[in-house]
Amino acid sequence: MHDWLAAQTMARPDGVALVIDDTTFTFRALNERVAGFAARLAAAGTQRGGVLGILLPNRLEAALAVYAAARLGVTLALLNTRLTPAELDGQIARAACSLLVCDSETLGVALELNGAPPMVCVDPVDRPPVIRLDQLPADTVENYRAGTITLDDPFAIMFTSGTSGTPRGALLTYGAIFASAMGSAYRIGVLPHDRWLCVLPLYHVGGVSILLRSCLYGTAVDLWRRFEPDAILQRLYAAPVTLISLVPTMLYRLLERHDPATPPCALRLALLGGAATPPDLAERAAHLGWPVATTYGLTEAASQVATALPEDVRRKPGSVGKPLIFSQVRVVDESGRDQAPGMYGEIIVGGPTLMQGYLGDMPLERAPDGDAWFATGDIGYLDADGDLWVVQRRSDLIISGGENIYPSEIEQVVRAHPAVADAAVIGVPSPEWGQQVGAVLVLRDATVHIDDILAFCRTRLAGYKLPRIVRVVDELPRTASGKLQRAGLRELLGEGETGRQGERGGGGDRERGRYGDKNNNAPRTGSLQEGI
Amino acid sequence: MHDWLAAQTMARPDGVALVIDDTTFTFRALNERVAGFAARLAAAGTQRGGVLGILLPNRLEAALAVYAAARLGVTLALLNTRLTPAELDGQIARAACSLLVCDSETLGVALELNGAPPMVCVDPVDRPPVIRLDQLPADTVENYRAGTITLDDPFAIMFTSGTSGTPRGALLTYGAIFASAMGSAYRIGVLPHDRWLCVLPLYHVGGVSILLRSCLYGTAVDLWRRFEPDAILQRLYAAPVTLISLVPTMLYRLLERHDPATPPCALRLALLGGAATPPDLAERAAHLGWPVATTYGLTEAASQVATALPEDVRRKPGSVGKPLIFSQVRVVDESGRDQAPGMYGEIIVGGPTLMQGYLGDMPLERAPDGDAWFATGDIGYLDADGDLWVVQRRSDLIISGGENIYPSEIEQVVRAHPAVADAAVIGVPSPEWGQQVGAVLVLRDATVHIDDILAFCRTRLAGYKLPRIVRVVDELPRTASGKLQRAGLRELLGEGETGRQGERGGGGDRERGRYGDKNNNAPRTGSLQEGI
Repeated sequence: MHDWLAAQTMARPDGVALVIDDTTFTFRALNERVAGFAARLAAAGTQRGGVLGILLPNRLEAALAVYAAARLGVTLALLNTRLTPAELDGQIARAACSLLVCDSETLGVALELNGAPPMVCVDPVDRPPVIRLDQLPADTVENYRAGTITLDDPFAIMFTSGTSGTPRGALLTYGAIFASAMGSAYRIGVLPHDRWLCVLPLYHVGGVSILLRSCLYGTAVDLWRRFEPDAILQRLYAAPVTLISLVPTMLYRLLERHDPATPPCALRLALLGGAATPPDLAERAAHLGWPVATTYGLTEAASQVATALPEDVRRKPGSVGKPLIFSQVRVVDESGRDQAPGMYGEIIVGGPTLMQGYLGDMPLERAPDGDAWFATGDIGYLDADGDLWVVQRRSDLIISGGENIYPSEIEQVVRAHPAVADAAVIGVPSPEWGQQVGAVLVLRDATVHIDDILAFCRTRLAGYKLPRIVRVVDELPRTASGKLQRAGLRELLGEGETGRQGERGGGGDRERGRYGDKNNNAPRTGSLQEGI
Repeated sequence: MHDWLAAQTMARPDGVALVIDDTTFTFRALNERVAGFAARLAAAGTQRGGVLGILLPNRLEAALAVYAAARLGVTLALLNTRLTPAELDGQIARAACSLLVCDSETLGVALELNGAPPMVCVDPVDRPPVIRLDQLPADTVENYRAGTITLDDPFAIMFTSGTSGTPRGALLTYGAIFASAMGSAYRIGVLPHDRWLCVLPLYHVGGVSILLRSCLYGTAVDLWRRFEPDAILQRLYAAPVTLISLVPTMLYRLLERHDPATPPCALRLALLGGAATPPDLAERAAHLGWPVATTYGLTEAASQVATALPEDVRRKPGSVGKPLIFSQVRVVDESGRDQAPGMYGEIIVGGPTLMQGYLGDMPLERAPDGDAWFATGDIGYLDADGDLWVVQRRSDLIISGGENIYPSEIEQVVRAHPAVADAAVIGVPSPEWGQQVGAVLVLRDATVHIDDILAFCRTRLAGYKLPRIVRVVDELPRTASGKLQRAGLRELLGEGETGRQGERGGGGDRERGRYGDKNNNAPRTGSLQEGI
C-alpha cells in the first residue's frame, strides 16, 4: 500500500493535516515538507532497513520524521527527551540506531552521549560533529514524494516500563497502528472536520498514534509542544478542536481553571488515559459537561484497548468500558484461567494492535488457535456487562503478610477525608510483613491531625490495609504524563533509589510546576507513559 | 478474525444494530437471532464451502442471512427479486447454489424455477418441496453464536451488468468489504450514534454494504422494504437517522415532497450514487440544506470508489470527488495511457476494495507492480484538482458517423428547455450512421411543439448531436434503483427487445408508480444497480 501520507495526499490533498505554532499544513503541503526532510536525512546516510533515533520535543520536524520513516524505509526509535545521557545510551545501543536526530534543545544531552551514532540537528546550530539538517542537500526529493509499506513493516520502537523497571523496546508494526486507528474510529467516531489536539509527547504511543491515525482519517492534528493549561484552554475555546487526548492530571488542571458554565463547544470527545482516572474526576468532568471518554491502553497494544464513551462514563465512572472491535481483553487468575465477573485478576490483551514483541526478545507467543496474548501485569476485573475496571498496575500491588492490598483502594478512602486533597499509597519494605502500607498525603487543611485521618480510615478499612507510614507533601511526584512516580514516593517514605544507575533523583515536590515550565529542572526518570 | 457481528457483540453488545418494522435489535439480540437462523439453515443441509442463494426482499431474514453466512462458512448469492425465473435459473446455476432461501413473496417465482436446488421458505407457508424454516431444528445453535473468517474468504456473489448486457457474478471477499467500510468511514465519517437508513435492496452492493459496514462500526441500520417517499420522509423527520443512501431519483422524489424550510435535523449525510447525479439536482438539494455527498461506485469495487463531501458538492455540483483513501482512480485512453486533466477517457479503478473477479473468469489481472486494476467501461475525466467527473457509462455511448456522442450532454441541453421536465437519450441503429440520437421526453407543458425544442437544441448542440427520433412519455422507464432502463428506452424508440430470452418486456410508462407500489406489475429486467 502507499504510505499513509502519500495516500491521503491523493485522497484529500487540500484537507488540513497539521496545525503547529499557528502554521497550517494541508496534506499536500505536509507531503512536500516530508519529501524534503526525507531527502536530507537520506543525504545524511540513512540506510533502508536501519533504525533512526528521534530525540525531539513536539515540533514540526518530529512530525516530519514520523511520516518520513516510511519513505526512507527505516524504523523509528522514538526517544524520551527527559532521559539522562546514560539512559539514552542504553536505548540507542539496544535499538541499534544508525542516525540520531536532535534539535537545539536536545543537542546538549546528545553531545553527552557515549558511542552515539552520527547526529543531525534540525536547528541551524553549528556544533561539530553534529550535522546541520539545513546544510544537507535535498536534490533527491523526487524519490521521497511517496513510498510504499506493508502492514508487516516495523514502524517504531517505543521504550516502555510503566512506572518502574527497566524500559523495554516495544516493536510496533504499521499493521498494529492501522488496526488501532480503525478500532478507535469505530468506537469514538471520526468526522471529516475533526481536529485532534495533541499535547502528549510524540515519543509516547498516545502522542504518535494521534499523528498516524489522523493521517489515515484525513483529519487535522493540532500539535503542541507542551501542556500549558491556560494556553490549551484558550485553544479549546478559540479553535475548532473536536478531540483531545489527556492524562487525568491534565484534565484535572484544565477543570481547575475551567468556567463550569461553558464547556468548549466544538469538543466532541476528550480521551482520558495513560493512568487510571479517579472516578470523582470523571464524574466532575461529566457534571461540567465535558465529553470524557476513559480508556485503557498500553504501548504494547499501540494505545487504546478499551474505551468507555461519555455516556458510559456517566453511568459507570471509573470503568474503561469494553474492548475496541477486534481487540480482546481477558482477566485471568494465576493459572491463566478466566476469572468470573467481578473477580480481580491479571488483564491480558489480544488482537491485531499488539506489538510484534520486545526488542531482543522472541516475538509474542501465540496460543494454539493462532492468537497472541500479552500479559499486561495490570490487575482488574470485568463486570457482568463485560466492562473493564482497572484496579492496579501489578507492579504497584502491595503484599503484606500474604494479603494482597490494592493501593488504589486505600487511596480512595484516604482521599474521601475532607482534609485530604490528594493521596498516594505504596508498599514499604518491612522485615516482619514483607511490605507495609505507606501513604503520602497532600492536605487541604493543614491543621488536621494525621491521627484523625487514620481514625477515619480505621472505620473503613481492614486493619492490615491501614497506612503505617505517613508523609505530608505539597504535591505528589508525577511523571510528565501524570502518572504517580512510585520511585519518588518510595524516596519520600525513606526508601531512596539514588543508587539506581542513570537516575538523578526521584521526584517529590521538586516536580511542582513541571507542566508548562519551559526551563523546569524536574529530574529525569526512566518512567514512560503507557499508551492512551 | 471473529466474524463481524460476533466481534461487535463483544465490543458493543447493547448498541442498536438494526431497526426494522419498528422492532429494534441490539447487537446481542441480533447475534442471537443469527445463531438460530444459521442453525436452522445448517439443519436444512447447508454445507461449509457451499453457495447459499438468497431470494428475499429487504426483511429481517435477509439481514440474518447476510450475517449467518460467516457462521455457516458459505458464500452468498444475493439474487435480484425482480428477475424472471429464466434469469434466476441462469444465475443460480452459474453460482452453483446448493440451497435457495425464499419467502412467501418470492416463493411463486422460486417454484417456477427449473433445476432449482433445495429451497427454504422463511415464512410459514406449506408448499412442498419447499422446506419451512420454522420447522427446522435449531438445536445446534451453540455452534453458531460466533464464527471466524479471514479477509480472503469470499463473502458474496453479486450479479451486475450496469444497464445492459448479460449479468456477471462479481465475487467479493470480506477483505474488499472491510476496506470499503474503512475507506467510507474515513471519508464521510462515522459516529457512535449513527443510524443508516437502508432502502436500497440488499441484493445490490449499495444496500448490503450498509449492513456490513454498520456492523463493523457498531452503528445502527434502519432497514426498509421499499422506497415510499412519504414514509421515508416521515422517518427522516421523526427518527434519529443520520445517514441515508439514495439513488438520484429517490432524492428527487423526496425533494418534491419536501418542505424547503426544514431539512431533517439529524441527517448528517445523504450518500447519492448508483447513477450519475444531475448537477441541478445536487444544487437544488444543497440549496435546500440537504447534506448531499455524491459518489461513484460499482459492484466490482464493493461500492464507493470516490465520494464528494457536501461542501465539495456545493462547490462543484456534478463531480463525484476524489477517491477514498487507498482506492485508486485513473482515466486512460484506448492504449491505457493516463489522460491529461480534463480529457475524457475510460475510468479504471484499483485498490483493496476490488472484487476477486467475475464468476467463471480468471481473477483480475495484476500489473507488474502487483496492483490489480478494473476497467469500468465508464467514461469520465479528472479535473486539475484530481476530482472525478463521470460523463457516461461506456455502454451508453452513442457513436454516430464515427463521432462519440455522450447522451448526458444532450439530455442536459434538452432538460434546460422550460417545457421539458425530464429527458433520456440513447443511440438508435441507423444503416447510414451506425447510430443516431434518439430522445424520450417528459413534458412539463404538453402544448409545446417538438420543433420548438429541437430549435432550442440547434442553437446549443452540433448538428450531429441533434435528436433524430423523439418520443414523449408520461414517465421515463427506470430500474428499481433509479437508473434509466436503456432497454425500455430502446423499445419506446422502436427497437424492441421482446425477443430477448427471459425478459417480459421493457418498461416504458408502465413503470409509473413502481416505487412504493407493493403490487406493481413493472416488468422484470436483468438490469442491476451498480454500487453506491
